[in-house]
Amino acid sequence: MSGVIVTDPPKADVKDVEALAGYGVATVHEAMGRTGLLGTRPRPVQQGVRVAGTAVTVLSWPGDNLMIHAAVEQCGEGDILVVTTTSPSTDGMFGELFATALKRRGVRGVIIDAGVRDTAELREMGFPAWSAAVSAQGTVKATGGSVNVPVVIGGQVIRPGDVILADDDGVVVVPREDARRAAEASEARENKEAASRAAFLEGQLGLDRYGLRTTLERLGVRYQSYDEYVRDGAGS
Amino acid sequence: MSGVIVTDPPKADVKDVEALAGYGVATVHEAMGRTGLLGTRPRPVQQGVRVAGTAVTVLSWPGDNLMIHAAVEQCGEGDILVVTTTSPSTDGMFGELFATALKRRGVRGVIIDAGVRDTAELREMGFPAWSAAVSAQGTVKATGGSVNVPVVIGGQVIRPGDVILADDDGVVVVPREDARRAAEASEARENKEAASRAAFLEGQLGLDRYGLRTTLERLGVRYQSYDEYVRDGAGS
Amino acid sequence: MSGVIVTDPPKADVKDVEALAGYGVATVHEAMGRTGLLGTRPRPVQQGVRVAGTAVTVLSWPGDNLMIHAAVEQCGEGDILVVTTTSPSTDGMFGELFATALKRRGVRGVIIDAGVRDTAELREMGFPAWSAAVSAQGTVKATGGSVNVPVVIGGQVIRPGDVILADDDGVVVVPREDARRAAEASEARENKEAASRAAFLEGQLGLDRYGLRTTLERLGVRYQSYDEYVRDGAGS
Amino acid sequence: MSGVIVTDPPKADVKDVEALAGYGVATVHEAMGRTGLLGTRPRPVQQGVRVAGTAVTVLSWPGDNLMIHAAVEQCGEGDILVVTTTSPSTDGMFGELFATALKRRGVRGVIIDAGVRDTAELREMGFPAWSAAVSAQGTVKATGGSVNVPVVIGGQVIRPGDVILADDDGVVVVPREDARRAAEASEARENKEAASRAAFLEGQLGLDRYGLRTTLERLGVRYQSYDEYVRDGAGS
Amino acid sequence: MSGVIVTDPPKADVKDVEALAGYGVATVHEAMGRTGLLGTRPRPVQQGVRVAGTAVTVLSWPGDNLMIHAAVEQCGEGDILVVTTTSPSTDGMFGELFATALKRRGVRGVIIDAGVRDTAELREMGFPAWSAAVSAQGTVKATGGSVNVPVVIGGQVIRPGDVILADDDGVVVVPREDARRAAEASEARENKEAASRAAFLEGQLGLDRYGLRTTLERLGVRYQSYDEYVRDGAGS
Amino acid sequence: MSGVIVTDPPKADVKDVEALAGYGVATVHEAMGRTGLLGTRPRPVQQGVRVAGTAVTVLSWPGDNLMIHAAVEQCGEGDILVVTTTSPSTDGMFGELFATALKRRGVRGVIIDAGVRDTAELREMGFPAWSAAVSAQGTVKATGGSVNVPVVIGGQVIRPGDVILADDDGVVVVPREDARRAAEASEARENKEAASRAAFLEGQLGLDRYGLRTTLERLGVRYQSYDEYVRDGAGS
Repeated sequence: MSGVIVTDPPKADVKDVEALAGYGVATVHEAMGRTGLLGTRPRPVQQGVRVAGTAVTVLSWPGDNLMIHAAVEQCGEGDILVVTTTSPSTDGMFGELFATALKRRGVRGVIIDAGVRDTAELREMGFPAWSAAVSAQGTVKATGGSVNVPVVIGGQVIRPGDVILADDDGVVVVPREDARRAAEASEARENKEAASRAAFLEGQLGLDRYGLRTTLERLGVRYQSYDEYVRDGAGS
Repeated sequence: MSGVIVTDPPKADVKDVEALAGYGVATVHEAMGRTGLLGTRPRPVQQGVRVAGTAVTVLSWPGDNLMIHAAVEQCGEGDILVVTTTSPSTDGMFGELFATALKRRGVRGVIIDAGVRDTAELREMGFPAWSAAVSAQGTVKATGGSVNVPVVIGGQVIRPGDVILADDDGVVVVPREDARRAAEASEARENKEAASRAAFLEGQLGLDRYGLRTTLERLGVRYQSYDEYVRDGAGS
Repeated sequence: MSGVIVTDPPKADVKDVEALAGYGVATVHEAMGRTGLLGTRPRPVQQGVRVAGTAVTVLSWPGDNLMIHAAVEQCGEGDILVVTTTSPSTDGMFGELFATALKRRGVRGVIIDAGVRDTAELREMGFPAWSAAVSAQGTVKATGGSVNVPVVIGGQVIRPGDVILADDDGVVVVPREDARRAAEASEARENKEAASRAAFLEGQLGLDRYGLRTTLERLGVRYQSYDEYVRDGAGS
Repeated sequence: MSGVIVTDPPKADVKDVEALAGYGVATVHEAMGRTGLLGTRPRPVQQGVRVAGTAVTVLSWPGDNLMIHAAVEQCGEGDILVVTTTSPSTDGMFGELFATALKRRGVRGVIIDAGVRDTAELREMGFPAWSAAVSAQGTVKATGGSVNVPVVIGGQVIRPGDVILADDDGVVVVPREDARRAAEASEARENKEAASRAAFLEGQLGLDRYGLRTTLERLGVRYQSYDEYVRDGAGS
Repeated sequence: MSGVIVTDPPKADVKDVEALAGYGVATVHEAMGRTGLLGTRPRPVQQGVRVAGTAVTVLSWPGDNLMIHAAVEQCGEGDILVVTTTSPSTDGMFGELFATALKRRGVRGVIIDAGVRDTAELREMGFPAWSAAVSAQGTVKATGGSVNVPVVIGGQVIRPGDVILADDDGVVVVPREDARRAAEASEARENKEAASRAAFLEGQLGLDRYGLRTTLERLGVRYQSYDEYVRDGAGS
Repeated sequence: MSGVIVTDPPKADVKDVEALAGYGVATVHEAMGRTGLLGTRPRPVQQGVRVAGTAVTVLSWPGDNLMIHAAVEQCGEGDILVVTTTSPSTDGMFGELFATALKRRGVRGVIIDAGVRDTAELREMGFPAWSAAVSAQGTVKATGGSVNVPVVIGGQVIRPGDVILADDDGVVVVPREDARRAAEASEARENKEAASRAAFLEGQLGLDRYGLRTTLERLGVRYQSYDEYVRDGAGS
């Protein structure tokens, strides 16, 4: 397989990335109209870490990490490496040596829709990773692929320079053009949530706060005491 | 989809719930004749926490948390919220705002056969959760469902008021009528296990303690030295 | 099902086992020509633990732990128990009582291609486990099986006496005859990796260090600026 | 594991079973308010067959078909055998010999949340089966279980005597008390669907027939030409 | 969730679609440089059918088929309906009534990354379907979504008007701009394969035809007689 | 990855292979003491076909079919090609061109623990295949591997020259040394099953035929009328 290594793609504005880093994955995903989440497969190797950065993307052959080597050269301060394979694979394509090289270049983490290894070392050196699997399975450097082309994880398109935000809940992508708007919408949502949190702490119900009692009524959901429910023959 | 919100179901006796809280999930499952375990899918979001409480059940449409809002109102001191969906879903139906509202009402945790989000926040605030997935995927409030009807997780029927016990090993349900009996049987089992533990620490073998040598003999399991085994052509 | 309990199998040399214990699973797997990894299914119950030992193998009926009782008697100082089932199962075949008995005998851990339970207790007592599932599901003692016969996990054959090495990345098996050679090759690999690590810390690229620029050229992977790439109609 | 074999459970009325046999699984599931479907795991071994009958239920130990032997004696004309295991299993618990014995007794098919084997023979002899897996893996007869107790498949409770309806789309259970009501509701639904089918054949749209244009409007779904959509920066 | 229904998107040229219909999915996927395959999840409901058409895309909420109703109106002669959900779902969103309406409009089939039902009827009426699941599970019409926006299945982006080609091997998407080029490349590949087929029928080896003996040599793959292999201690 | 191509391995006797071809996979698996089944993952691409032959084994890199080309040369009359990968893969490594070459050499079929493509063509030309997946995904010829070394599928070791038997129920391996014994045991089992079949057709119960009533008694399984069962509070 041949491929292309694209150099100097546009990137989201650093200030917007920093702004997004202040919110959780769930908040940003909601603020963008419930889009951008990379599904449930990328899981964090560590706990309690949140990072934001600009994507350097890799499309690799399964069982082959040649293109990650090519991608390292394209990575710089504030980037996050995003690795996918042309078909499903759990091989351990990424480990401590790559993390060492990337950390020196100012890269903030890795998202990989395949396997990672050296997970104890990654945790120890503080290089965060989100992966589809943990596997020591080694790889070759034999087949071409691409760097900085659009890739897809969990049904979401990730272009080089898009913002990647990752925490314990998963990973979300924000298109580079939407970074500012997403940060603003996230702030608005967080304010709204803070108000709800305060109300809930005082005992208000979501049913009342969000006007859901009328929704239940419109949908025909009825209230019934347990005794009535059993008498109607539906209990057990 | 329409549905029903059942109010004031009977609940297991508080004293029995407290008694059961003193045992692990494996112990209670065994003591009840190896029944009640909710399979391997509900996994804890935190580590080292055990809770027991009475079930408030929710049957939701996938991707919709309307009925969880309805359920909050039905929850009180000592309850555990149990959420299922009409078809499989990993969406993040439950997060920190729900946990805030429930914690204030004295609810002890949540079991959800779908996704949770805000997992870092849940761990921080000490509201324990067992879920089939971690996902930031947002949900709508558009479709009806039911509260406090019998639901099924991992092949086990859970009725409102039944006892839910959860720890690092998973989740078990004890029918509300059987709570006392289960607590007593658990105590008996724990005593028996304590005796076995002591015996094993002194070097006794399970083969002897449980009379298994005759079982092996009856089943035709034979002993053979490695040399004989290889000579018979079965080694490698 | 009948079966056989094989006694006194040959074992890898203790010194070689100790030597291998000094390396990670990924290193040893690579050093052996990328062989021996037990796939991605056995996952550690704990974090940050590495063990090495000689295999005592068990082939059990699903949902039945009779043969683990038989295996305990065959276990001694420096062994690791390796349990498989004749067909896939997630039942909790192994728990704290077995761990108590094995720890007393000097056994270093358990690898099980099924479920474990009492995971909180296992972590607390420091008996490490790698399993395909966590499940409180109880088992019977009704059907025969075998001890110390060759078994297979993740596509790898494990014979009694082979070396098992396990850490956060998974589990690898080293044939008992190859233990010394594997330890030596692991040392060589670790030295090579240390040199690469040092070079990467100084900013060298894998592309240059491993001569991969010519590989990329031979495969027809080309470099292109983002502007050219978009002009060619391939960007988005 | 001990257990119980329950004899002479009540059964749904034969006329109601026959009436339900006239409708597809999807129709009956919808007519009952979208309940009763045994999920997506039981798949037909054959194609183009629909059967209805009354459930004889079995709860077996994984890898053990002892209780199916016990269940055969409880089966008679018009029954369908429904087999589950106490924990997940794909073993081939059911094959041509059981089918031979059941066919002679007038049993109409088998639903099994585990594996079947002899599938070529089952198709040839015309004994329909729906199973979670096809597997030649043999089983033992060593552990107890129960017959004609409530069992659960795909989140649905099946009691002895309940109606089982199965076709190429899957399997649905109708509680024995609801059989008549379900048959009537199915007829009503089929009539409604026939009218829709006729309307669609004449070119009417569901949007108009079901009044969905107002739903779209209420939800804020807007129409936009492709050119506008791209101009707004959302196309690609 | 709100959304947009995009009208009158550009479509691939009819002649190119017809040309592509003459090749299998594997051929076109290879001819396009091994791209465009929608993974292994969409499986055909029927056997031995191949269709090609232009995509009308749908992004639906899980468990909700409202937007399929909206999409029917956007479908016409030569189209193929492509349905995805915002999060994973196996619900039976599509059945015989939709097929009836679409067939009348000249639509050639459906690709759905969720469930279909009425599979016997679909086969009978000759409306081909490729789906991630077969399920009778019913859906609601309660939540918004989009029609004719870019969607993703199996890691591939599908835009409205792109060519969809499906057969027993799966489904491939060809970007509308690349349809002609893909058809030409497919013809070239088919000619090449015909020559290989003829050569293989005469006994030529791929090793010789593709010059792979030197590849094996370069990679260090060596030939060894079984006797030597065993003597070297690697046989069994 | 380097590797070895082993030439002229010993093979099971042709007469024994032919004898085994007369029995189903389930029968032979049972006759060998319930061993040798390659799990549930290899599924037939066709229906109603049974083949037996001697294994030519391949260990390939995922996404790479170079070694299948090397294996073709090692294949001859009466062989069955058995392909595995070093880590899990669903790529379509095998298709109609390989089948053409192999058929000419007298090869009887292929077993592959990865993907196949051209399934319509394979069915048409009558070259049977059992695979873990159907996928059009193309592969490269870039990385080494081995031919005629022991490989593992579904936990079973397959050596070159071992007997492979495959039908609608799956695939079983018989070690070459055990082929005669397995054929004899299969005949014995089939005779026993024929007697059982005749008895069942006459109405005998397995409970009586296999003496299982005493087993039930020993295990404490009791009979209870439905009325008693409900009165005891266990019915529903």
